[in-house]
Amino acid sequence: MKGDTIAAISTPLGEGAIAIVRLSGEQAISIADKLFKSGSKRLQEVASHTIHYGHIVDPKSEQVVEEVMMSVMRSPKTFTKEDVVEINCHGGIVTVNRVLQLVLQNGARLAEPGEFTKRAFLNGRIDLSQAEAVMDLIRAKTDQAMNVALGQMEGKLSALIKKLRQEILETLAHVEVNIDYPEYDDVEEMTHRMLIEKATFVRTEIKKLLQTAQQGKILREGLSTVIIGRPNVGKSSLLNSLVQENKAIVTDIAGTTRDIIEEYVNVRGVPLRLVDTAGIRETEDIVERIGVERSRKVLKEADMILFVINSAEPLTKEDEQLFEAVKDMDVIVILNKTDLPTKVNMEKVYELAKDHQVVATSLLEEKGVDELEEAIAAMFFAGSIEAGDLTYVSNNRHVALLHQSLEAIEDALEGIENGIPIDIVQIDLTRTWELLGEIIGDSVHESLIDQLFSQFCLGK
Amino acid sequence: MKGDTIAAISTPLGEGAIAIVRLSGEQAISIADKLFKSGSKRLQEVASHTIHYGHIVDPKSEQVVEEVMMSVMRSPKTFTKEDVVEINCHGGIVTVNRVLQLVLQNGARLAEPGEFTKRAFLNGRIDLSQAEAVMDLIRAKTDQAMNVALGQMEGKLSALIKKLRQEILETLAHVEVNIDYPEYDDVEEMTHRMLIEKATFVRTEIKKLLQTAQQGKILREGLSTVIIGRPNVGKSSLLNSLVQENKAIVTDIAGTTRDIIEEYVNVRGVPLRLVDTAGIRETEDIVERIGVERSRKVLKEADMILFVINSAEPLTKEDEQLFEAVKDMDVIVILNKTDLPTKVNMEKVYELAKDHQVVATSLLEEKGVDELEEAIAAMFFAGSIEAGDLTYVSNNRHVALLHQSLEAIEDALEGIENGIPIDIVQIDLTRTWELLGEIIGDSVHESLIDQLFSQFCLGK
Repeated sequence: MKGDTIAAISTPLGEGAIAIVRLSGEQAISIADKLFKSGSKRLQEVASHTIHYGHIVDPKSEQVVEEVMMSVMRSPKTFTKEDVVEINCHGGIVTVNRVLQLVLQNGARLAEPGEFTKRAFLNGRIDLSQAEAVMDLIRAKTDQAMNVALGQMEGKLSALIKKLRQEILETLAHVEVNIDYPEYDDVEEMTHRMLIEKATFVRTEIKKLLQTAQQGKILREGLSTVIIGRPNVGKSSLLNSLVQENKAIVTDIAGTTRDIIEEYVNVRGVPLRLVDTAGIRETEDIVERIGVERSRKVLKEADMILFVINSAEPLTKEDEQLFEAVKDMDVIVILNKTDLPTKVNMEKVYELAKDHQVVATSLLEEKGVDELEEAIAAMFFAGSIEAGDLTYVSNNRHVALLHQSLEAIEDALEGIENGIPIDIVQIDLTRTWELLGEIIGDSVHESLIDQLFSQFCLGK
Repeated sequence: MKGDTIAAISTPLGEGAIAIVRLSGEQAISIADKLFKSGSKRLQEVASHTIHYGHIVDPKSEQVVEEVMMSVMRSPKTFTKEDVVEINCHGGIVTVNRVLQLVLQNGARLAEPGEFTKRAFLNGRIDLSQAEAVMDLIRAKTDQAMNVALGQMEGKLSALIKKLRQEILETLAHVEVNIDYPEYDDVEEMTHRMLIEKATFVRTEIKKLLQTAQQGKILREGLSTVIIGRPNVGKSSLLNSLVQENKAIVTDIAGTTRDIIEEYVNVRGVPLRLVDTAGIRETEDIVERIGVERSRKVLKEADMILFVINSAEPLTKEDEQLFEAVKDMDVIVILNKTDLPTKVNMEKVYELAKDHQVVATSLLEEKGVDELEEAIAAMFFAGSIEAGDLTYVSNNRHVALLHQSLEAIEDALEGIENGIPIDIVQIDLTRTWELLGEIIGDSVHESLIDQLFSQFCLGK
């Protein structure tokens, strides 16, 4: 509903130095003005993009509610392209809620999650993939995730998608000519050649993009990593060593649920998401804590397994079962406690490990950690990807649409090669064009838009 | 260290729509300028109190780090009276940390907790009691606490303290005259009369302020309330009823520790801090959960006890022990389960309850809750206090200083009345003046200032 003014608290809820209530819409400035007292200054008269000191006063009780800085930004050079006011409060929960209530009582409506960004999209400031990147940026847990999101927000993916759509559009124009003037044989000939050429180009580009998807997902979400091993082999020490050696990017985020079971660390540029670290910390045994069934699931979803063995004890039946459980996965075997006399059967270990790398460590004496980190980095970069200037696809929605686009363009190509009537090929090309359009929000249902933005956080 | 530029993240850490990195100091604008790219715009040339859209770019790698709005505010009309820049980022944890790191790498120093407010104090924008109110405002859990903090921040307490100090100063001036010119008898006579008059006035005012301390503390922290009773009498229902009927002001604040054992509710204007609610929720028995020793301590520190009895069962020995444990406290006895046939000995209940109010409820049928709330409000307002325009003292440091000031002024009065030499009286008066000065930070040790501000949150 264009025209109505929305408001929300745009800073995380908690005790902080600054909290912001943001308004956007036609009435944003006049609503703020009703509550603002600063001598005889009226916000409606001030210049755009200026900041004003004063107080929020309840118009009914005339009670001073807060000391604020008001940022006034007029349409169209704002986040939403509408008039925007940001009320910069002292960061108390009660105060900022009170300010929000006053804003709502004076004509604004509480914004839905993501509604500010949705307006930025609906008003044409950013496209859908850029809007999605805004949320990815907020949720980014690692530098790499941030870089992927930033690239997407800056429009790298959009530019590529637009280029492909332009190619298809040009092809479609030629096809039109061919359908309208079938009598020109040379047009048909040219169209046929061009069709194959252009469609092949589009297919190649889509494939390239899809090749970045797995890495994009890892960069975005971190390499899901599980530490396993019998009790008392050193899982907890390994976890601590990884977390302490490498800057723990996010450990305990205010606002997350109580079941914090993940920890993010950056190992030589590889973002690891250590799963169920709480289990490891508290019981030294993931299986004991989360149950065998869930453990299997956690293992299955892991991108990498760090499997710790005690080199100072013979292999047990449990060790062998664990080897069996992870045999088809990306595993690094860690032979820990090398400070003690070796009692494990090394030959047997290498036999069970098969192609998996085995690293010897003494976490107690901090030995072998470098080698382990190298092994982790080597495993990740083996797929020869680096967080460089490449445009990554990291969003599941985009990946799904790219897969569908690939199918459509392959249908088109097959049609062309098999001499299928040109107007059938045209349908496949149009479908490719539309599917790519959905990525940037050019041809997309309203319900999907609603659903996408509802995943945003409040106040964005 | 004046001159150096400080920086910190000033919004609560978490996933939000907006995060702010704040800089203050001589280099604030030039440091921000090094990182800011927005065409050829230079922040050093822009007008004060203006907002600028652009990007944060790492000067070394030339990589774009974030899309930002820069608020530039020049000295002296700022929070700290120094040049201030606020970098308004998308609210991601990783991104905002990255921006902070860049700011620190380019000449700013990480601010200590409270250092922005400390600078506001040291640069004379606010006095110490106002600075303390800033933190109270942020920590406020109820509307009343917010109002008390706001009043103090606006300088109500400061104004009163300054007035008292002025009175003392005038008195001291007269005393000086008397000491310097002892030959004028009429001066001595007048001084004596005036001394008694002024000192009595100061004493009265300090006493009045101290009378607000207990209420101020309650308004600030909430009335510490404990629900007790045997298992299964309805403590959990009472808690839920209070929380649901009355807007729970703060339940689960992001950023607090995991042991949330308090819940804030507003019962007819009375802020209740329900203590150890987790214990009640989880085990239906505070004693069972937190142990007898700690329970005693919790009870001792409570401002009010809600003691629930099951009216459908005879009194037990446990009930009687609980009556004994709380006999000297502010207790409301709640006879619950009145929907069932009464089996409790009512006479005995009233006998044990003594002067305490007894309210009959059926929490199951939602009966008697109104009466209970009235009883709570009546108990609170019995001390005839209301959260009106009164200036409340709510801070323990202020209360302690006022008590010391009161002693000092009483020493002075006693001296005057007993004809003690005027230069001894002068010492007591000067002490009163100094002690009152400590409240507003006029005569206060640097170490105390450091200690006070270190209790602030980061970025404030």
